[in-house]
Amino acid sequence: MKRPMGVRRSGAPRFGAAVIGAGIYGKCHARAYRKHPDVDLVAIWSRSAERASAAGREAGCTWTTDQDSIAGDPRIQMVSVATPDFGHTEPVLKMLAAGKHVLVEKPMAYTADECRQMIEAANRSGLKLMVNFHNRWYPSLVEAKRLIEEGRIGSPTMAFLRLSDRIEVATEWLSWAGGSGPEWFLFPHTVDLARWLMGQEVLRVFAGGHKGVLSGRGIDCYDAVQALLVMEEGLVTLESSWILPPGWRSVIQMEVDVQGSEGKLEVVCDQEGLQLTAGRLDTPFFLDPWTTEKLPIEAFIASVRDGTPVPVPPEEGLACTAVLQAIARSLRTGNVEEVER
Amino acid sequence: MKRPMGVRRSGAPRFGAAVIGAGIYGKCHARAYRKHPDVDLVAIWSRSAERASAAGREAGCTWTTDQDSIAGDPRIQMVSVATPDFGHTEPVLKMLAAGKHVLVEKPMAYTADECRQMIEAANRSGLKLMVNFHNRWYPSLVEAKRLIEEGRIGSPTMAFLRLSDRIEVATEWLSWAGGSGPEWFLFPHTVDLARWLMGQEVLRVFAGGHKGVLSGRGIDCYDAVQALLVMEEGLVTLESSWILPPGWRSVIQMEVDVQGSEGKLEVVCDQEGLQLTAGRLDTPFFLDPWTTEKLPIEAFIASVRDGTPVPVPPEEGLACTAVLQAIARSLRTGNVEEVER
Amino acid sequence: MKRPMGVRRSGAPRFGAAVIGAGIYGKCHARAYRKHPDVDLVAIWSRSAERASAAGREAGCTWTTDQDSIAGDPRIQMVSVATPDFGHTEPVLKMLAAGKHVLVEKPMAYTADECRQMIEAANRSGLKLMVNFHNRWYPSLVEAKRLIEEGRIGSPTMAFLRLSDRIEVATEWLSWAGGSGPEWFLFPHTVDLARWLMGQEVLRVFAGGHKGVLSGRGIDCYDAVQALLVMEEGLVTLESSWILPPGWRSVIQMEVDVQGSEGKLEVVCDQEGLQLTAGRLDTPFFLDPWTTEKLPIEAFIASVRDGTPVPVPPEEGLACTAVLQAIARSLRTGNVEEVER
Amino acid sequence: MKRPMGVRRSGAPRFGAAVIGAGIYGKCHARAYRKHPDVDLVAIWSRSAERASAAGREAGCTWTTDQDSIAGDPRIQMVSVATPDFGHTEPVLKMLAAGKHVLVEKPMAYTADECRQMIEAANRSGLKLMVNFHNRWYPSLVEAKRLIEEGRIGSPTMAFLRLSDRIEVATEWLSWAGGSGPEWFLFPHTVDLARWLMGQEVLRVFAGGHKGVLSGRGIDCYDAVQALLVMEEGLVTLESSWILPPGWRSVIQMEVDVQGSEGKLEVVCDQEGLQLTAGRLDTPFFLDPWTTEKLPIEAFIASVRDGTPVPVPPEEGLACTAVLQAIARSLRTGNVEEVER
Repeated sequence: MKRPMGVRRSGAPRFGAAVIGAGIYGKCHARAYRKHPDVDLVAIWSRSAERASAAGREAGCTWTTDQDSIAGDPRIQMVSVATPDFGHTEPVLKMLAAGKHVLVEKPMAYTADECRQMIEAANRSGLKLMVNFHNRWYPSLVEAKRLIEEGRIGSPTMAFLRLSDRIEVATEWLSWAGGSGPEWFLFPHTVDLARWLMGQEVLRVFAGGHKGVLSGRGIDCYDAVQALLVMEEGLVTLESSWILPPGWRSVIQMEVDVQGSEGKLEVVCDQEGLQLTAGRLDTPFFLDPWTTEKLPIEAFIASVRDGTPVPVPPEEGLACTAVLQAIARSLRTGNVEEVER
Repeated sequence: MKRPMGVRRSGAPRFGAAVIGAGIYGKCHARAYRKHPDVDLVAIWSRSAERASAAGREAGCTWTTDQDSIAGDPRIQMVSVATPDFGHTEPVLKMLAAGKHVLVEKPMAYTADECRQMIEAANRSGLKLMVNFHNRWYPSLVEAKRLIEEGRIGSPTMAFLRLSDRIEVATEWLSWAGGSGPEWFLFPHTVDLARWLMGQEVLRVFAGGHKGVLSGRGIDCYDAVQALLVMEEGLVTLESSWILPPGWRSVIQMEVDVQGSEGKLEVVCDQEGLQLTAGRLDTPFFLDPWTTEKLPIEAFIASVRDGTPVPVPPEEGLACTAVLQAIARSLRTGNVEEVER
Repeated sequence: MKRPMGVRRSGAPRFGAAVIGAGIYGKCHARAYRKHPDVDLVAIWSRSAERASAAGREAGCTWTTDQDSIAGDPRIQMVSVATPDFGHTEPVLKMLAAGKHVLVEKPMAYTADECRQMIEAANRSGLKLMVNFHNRWYPSLVEAKRLIEEGRIGSPTMAFLRLSDRIEVATEWLSWAGGSGPEWFLFPHTVDLARWLMGQEVLRVFAGGHKGVLSGRGIDCYDAVQALLVMEEGLVTLESSWILPPGWRSVIQMEVDVQGSEGKLEVVCDQEGLQLTAGRLDTPFFLDPWTTEKLPIEAFIASVRDGTPVPVPPEEGLACTAVLQAIARSLRTGNVEEVER
Repeated sequence: MKRPMGVRRSGAPRFGAAVIGAGIYGKCHARAYRKHPDVDLVAIWSRSAERASAAGREAGCTWTTDQDSIAGDPRIQMVSVATPDFGHTEPVLKMLAAGKHVLVEKPMAYTADECRQMIEAANRSGLKLMVNFHNRWYPSLVEAKRLIEEGRIGSPTMAFLRLSDRIEVATEWLSWAGGSGPEWFLFPHTVDLARWLMGQEVLRVFAGGHKGVLSGRGIDCYDAVQALLVMEEGLVTLESSWILPPGWRSVIQMEVDVQGSEGKLEVVCDQEGLQLTAGRLDTPFFLDPWTTEKLPIEAFIASVRDGTPVPVPPEEGLACTAVLQAIARSLRTGNVEEVER
């Protein structure tokens, strides 16, 4: 999309940033920092020297396999943590301990306890800690939230949120799918949206999962999970699969349907109004560079720069993780599980 | 739709039919019998003389408020039972006892025990007993079933079925909505489709419901219900509301989404390819006269006439009701409930 | 779709039928005759002995490469003509001369003069002559016509009709695509629908075409044609291409959009409510066996059997051809062309 | 949408802007200038003192009914001209003569001659002159252009562009609809998109129009127009109506369909992925503030500020107007008309 390129403001203070993680999201954070007029991207980290150096070349910054070198670099004020889902806590705590503001990818952690540790560490030090629930910047979801807050559908009573991935994400994009699953990789998005859009907390959950397709390929995790969330005043069902057929029109399928006492909202997030059929039907994400890569990371930078509260405080990450934990327990026990407060 | 009108076959045996119930579905059965070349529609019954006589005039047959007069009429071989959801058992048993073949509306009953009584009565007497799961004749669902059986999506792993009604159905069409609810009025359709399309039984269920909108209007039942069904080899979520806003494009919303190990099927049953926008957007049901009114009732008549098995045996009605009962229990207890076998 | 199979009526008169042409449509007519309770399919003709014999085996009837043997067979009362687009006139005239009722595929002919000859021949002999505009039986178009006649969109002012084919129809399905083109193979459908739905005649036309893709493969015809039709009281645009990419979701794309003074109708004829994604997105035609193969041919048979007028008289075929001729002239001249009356 | 508010850069040069026209678009330009960090909105003009003062209050700037006061104000370097469609030329020439850079709304003028006068005036003075074809900034159309340029559909062969308005635009929003019509108010958008997306010039046109609905309400203009454009290497059909029924889901309907030798692009611009059904179905434009109001006007400002070429040079406005003139001639003559070069 044609947008005026960032222009550095003369005399404005500059910030140094680093990114921990060189996967898809890590690279996305790196691009966002690099393009921002107020920020210098200093370094990118990966466990693997090969991936770190490649990402550093791509991002035009130094690279490292040693998180301490980032922690100890006085030029760096802000750090994005975009390691695999289950590996956020340690680098976040390390960076907060080193006095860095932190933007952490979703889910914040796999346990509420770890989230609480991070929150306490941030509170003690007065540092910014933000969870990157980037869907809160997606235009149609922003509008949905606004319409709900305006009362256009009355009070929310029920929602259905579907977020699924084409099977290649689990089998090719990620090396660590077996340690995750739709409930950890996809539900963080929809649990957060459910809480945000409904304006209610989740009390209890029941979840069921299907295994067999991915395990048949040596990836031991759920193919698909559905969960029913009992909210304070309503109901939400989540559905996520990561075995969408290779011929599916987009790498994801994402739908959000919210019913209220007076009306109904339907959001389709994987079709942005354009369809291309050549080899097959394809619905490209052209809003992505703007809504995933740019806006939420700019919002984090602005909070650090201006000393204002982060738009998604870490308590939101904690609340989401508490729901995810209850879902994971329900998958194990086959029972309804209470969400821990 | 232009179709050649039924032509009576000379010398072919003729059958007499009656309809118990003069609501929307009762009138639909009456029209189907009246148009069939092999059938004489003899009588229609309603508890109310006013409604019975109006329906009789409309259908061109005699009317009665006395079910015994139907039971005792030797001209009648087949009877449709289309009373309110919770009132099927008594007339079905009475008609079977009187030697009539019976086509009963869905749900067969509110308890599995009542279903078993009906099945035993039919078995003892050798009479036909069919449950009118008419969606099994809806063209896109027939095709979905065929594609699944052909293995086009691999083995079914997960499904989502949504069937909702505009609020006027609960507030205006039915006088007895307060004695029913989405779980009794709408789930019979989707529970049956889930079992039929997945080719699996339901083991356990969890359900949640929302109250407030209809109860605020003096109709004491759920506004909306979601249920998660654990199947033998997969998962199904059902969603039904009957508070769709008055501006909704159709009197229903109905979607069936089935994911398999190799592919995915999406069926939209409330849009048949035509949209009319005048006062507002409207998606009329032009397939309805053929698929709801004609085909399943013709299939019942053919079974009686030809002495062949009914296409939807009463055991399917029993299995559906057992799931509905477990859902109703789960709504009461807030727990996961086993489906009784 | 589950439908009661045809049952032969005892003692009813029987009719013999034959089919001239053993392509896709010829086989479709043969299947329809074979399934009809009042008809015996006697013979099928093709220019090629190989194709004729294969089609005869498939249809369970005798085959021939000699049209005279059909003309001379006293068992045959009705004949379908389903030869290539440009080859209808001769067999239709021959069969009418032999005293057969004729159902001819669209377009009736390439010239209005030929249509007039056929009409005169039928009128002289008192034989039925019907043009198989089968879209007039397609459920959503039937409903569109009904809604327009009810005045639901006010008076029709403008329409857009798109009917396109995947490139394989021109390159693989037909051997004679080079002698035809979108304007002859696809426009007969939409010209007829435009006249029927708008309830108006076409006065003048302007058309443009694109060549290059198919001619690059040695098939010398238009890839795509658009035509603007000035009607008595409104406007219609037609668009047809037969180079839809191989990955397109259906073998056709078909949309009909009619705007009236008070409302708007949108019909999508290539999506019947079901989507299958396995190798790629696919929107199967499950209504086809019923609406293309069964209903219009049954209507022809009923006219012959009952001595009633055919539902699509040959004058409709003539009017359509007159428009097609004007379009073809406009493509040649680059000018606006009057439709001959 | 949450976006970081503009931040004024310390020490950067500032520009003064004015807006001529206080209708929907005039206000839109005013808002865009007001929010821009490098611009001071100085004044807004309307012929009517009432509307000018209201718009001035809303925009927080002075107002005037005298264009000369804008022309003579040395604080103003850039002027937007957003008067009714047919009244652009005079103010544009006046502002250029006064040394102002000009952003003019589409269509540039009703005649190619007027466009040429404006271009010459701009060239003589070295001032920027840009036509605000804002759809070139709409995300899905930007992506469509990119995909076409990448060759994803091969070479463009045919397009269909529909842009229509709900009847209230002609009957309520505009006071001057009778002096315009779909061919002047709506075709400028789609003619420009057709040329831009196809990458070809229009050689000849044929157009037809329907009158009656609006003229019956005393507004003497076409209700609907269709035009067939013969391009250098392909075909384009345009359809525009401004009598869409009041119940239509959006104030516009906008679809762009481009077929290439290897693929097909379908863009729906009036559904941005969110549907709200309360009183009726509604598909709000949430991308609008960003794509209509912000990006193209920012691009104009950047050209003035940085001394770079405008992204839509006035020759594009001229080419568009030449096509519009040919369409208007064709509507008058009923003949095919050549586009003047």
